[in-house]
Amino acid sequence: MKEHSLDRLQTRINEMKNPTCLGLDPRPDVVPGFLFDESGDLEEGLYQFGKRLIDATADLLPAVKPQFAYYEACGIPGLLAVQRTMSYAREKGMLVIADAKRGDIGSTSEAYAKAFLGETNMAGEKFSAFPADVVTVQPYTGSDGVKPFLDTAVAHEKGLFLLCRTSNPSAKDLQDLQLTSGSAVVEELAMLIRDWGQPYVTPTYDLSALGAVVGATYPAEAAHLRKLMPQTFFLVPGYGAQGAGADDAVAGFRNDNSGCVVNASRSIAMAYKKFNMPVEDFAEAARLEVVEMKKKLNAALARR
Amino acid sequence: MKEHSLDRLQTRINEMKNPTCLGLDPRPDVVPGFLFDESGDLEEGLYQFGKRLIDATADLLPAVKPQFAYYEACGIPGLLAVQRTMSYAREKGMLVIADAKRGDIGSTSEAYAKAFLGETNMAGEKFSAFPADVVTVQPYTGSDGVKPFLDTAVAHEKGLFLLCRTSNPSAKDLQDLQLTSGSAVVEELAMLIRDWGQPYVTPTYDLSALGAVVGATYPAEAAHLRKLMPQTFFLVPGYGAQGAGADDAVAGFRNDNSGCVVNASRSIAMAYKKFNMPVEDFAEAARLEVVEMKKKLNAALARR
Repeated sequence: MKEHSLDRLQTRINEMKNPTCLGLDPRPDVVPGFLFDESGDLEEGLYQFGKRLIDATADLLPAVKPQFAYYEACGIPGLLAVQRTMSYAREKGMLVIADAKRGDIGSTSEAYAKAFLGETNMAGEKFSAFPADVVTVQPYTGSDGVKPFLDTAVAHEKGLFLLCRTSNPSAKDLQDLQLTSGSAVVEELAMLIRDWGQPYVTPTYDLSALGAVVGATYPAEAAHLRKLMPQTFFLVPGYGAQGAGADDAVAGFRNDNSGCVVNASRSIAMAYKKFNMPVEDFAEAARLEVVEMKKKLNAALARR
Repeated sequence: MKEHSLDRLQTRINEMKNPTCLGLDPRPDVVPGFLFDESGDLEEGLYQFGKRLIDATADLLPAVKPQFAYYEACGIPGLLAVQRTMSYAREKGMLVIADAKRGDIGSTSEAYAKAFLGETNMAGEKFSAFPADVVTVQPYTGSDGVKPFLDTAVAHEKGLFLLCRTSNPSAKDLQDLQLTSGSAVVEELAMLIRDWGQPYVTPTYDLSALGAVVGATYPAEAAHLRKLMPQTFFLVPGYGAQGAGADDAVAGFRNDNSGCVVNASRSIAMAYKKFNMPVEDFAEAARLEVVEMKKKLNAALARR
């Protein structure tokens, strides 16, 4: 099969020697208020939040991950802002991971897949609603909820990350339930992800178009899940504000230091506090934090 | 605690003697093309699809369930159309179930919850992005992914349906995994839904603000899950086009015939085919189908 977007993500990580993803979480307590004052406009303020972080870091970072929840909570202005932000990031050469955690069954999953990875054909027109390179997807409905995303991804040389081990404390509620097979739910899902993704492994990096979300807050688990999914790209959330450090974040990388991208959101956007800089310099502070995070991750990878 | 939206849903079902929900799934093969020809506009055509079905059935039906995937796949025009459709349905007195199957962790779930059930406070303004009475939610992240939805629902006298047993064939992939406790994953989740929802049971109907999605395509399972969740409102998808009949759809109702709403989407919107009517009369045909479905469901409830 042809190259997919997770191949391109690995290529960019290698070129930039940086496996970091810029998470854009425009929470009310994270977006600097002056961005709204300057523009007098919700959409423009939200767009400027992402644009300025992208401008400050695009030469250092392979990818950006807008969190759709925060944009959607702002209604149509928020969704217009995320469309513009995603388009701007792609102009700057970044890969775009739409963190939308969508998922349903059959043809409904197909509609979501087309919205983010493909094209909708409606009213005699073909268009892409929220074009991304990769989208995050929910696993609970099983294979026929996931397959439309995978089919659409493969048809358009894109990829997806299926939730496997989330980074939150109550991840255990369902994911750690012990099965009569001897595995936990999360391990069973890992084996399904491996099997479902196997036909879509390319020789480029021996990675599948079907990736997995594996939180940095469970490093021992990440190392174990890597063994179950050797050809699966991991999106690793939880670095920084959620409590995981560099050594935790690299636990799921493959032996050749490939196969993972580590996301940080608040720790980058709010780095001005850590560096005691004025909020007006949040983008410059973000760059300093990205440089520091890159060093920390590479050092952690070197000492494994 | 105060009354929640699932109480209001039960009241409307009782008043109308009809436990049916109008599903709005504007798929390319479901929306009559003439609606786009008439208006020359994607947003207006999508809006007219819902509006005409609502106009034809609002006096017979307690609730409407727009499927966000299809609106989102149409981008901003689709999302403007669903906002208008939801607002119109509420004007007509229907309860609105936003079938968005959202879910994430912690503060990100909170952002989604505010988008559908509460208010976002951003850029010095307070607003509701996609105001609904009830929203559907993903369970995989566990309690701290669900709690923000529940807290927001309770604060605004709303409710939610958590995915429990989905109506698709591969529901079994994760939901049927057998646990060492002797239960399957779906049973364990049912007990969690019962426990998480217990503090939000009102005396009105002995129903919680935390409901569950329990597909009509697994009737034996629905009856069993009812025993595990006696105070939980069920949203029952799968009637009609997905293959479930009236007897399947009523399997999860409580002994007093309360506690469930049965959704139908394609079988209503495309009833003009079944009745051999021209597509221009799709709304009139939908009304005929709704009358027939109401009779079938009530007959099935009577013979249980």
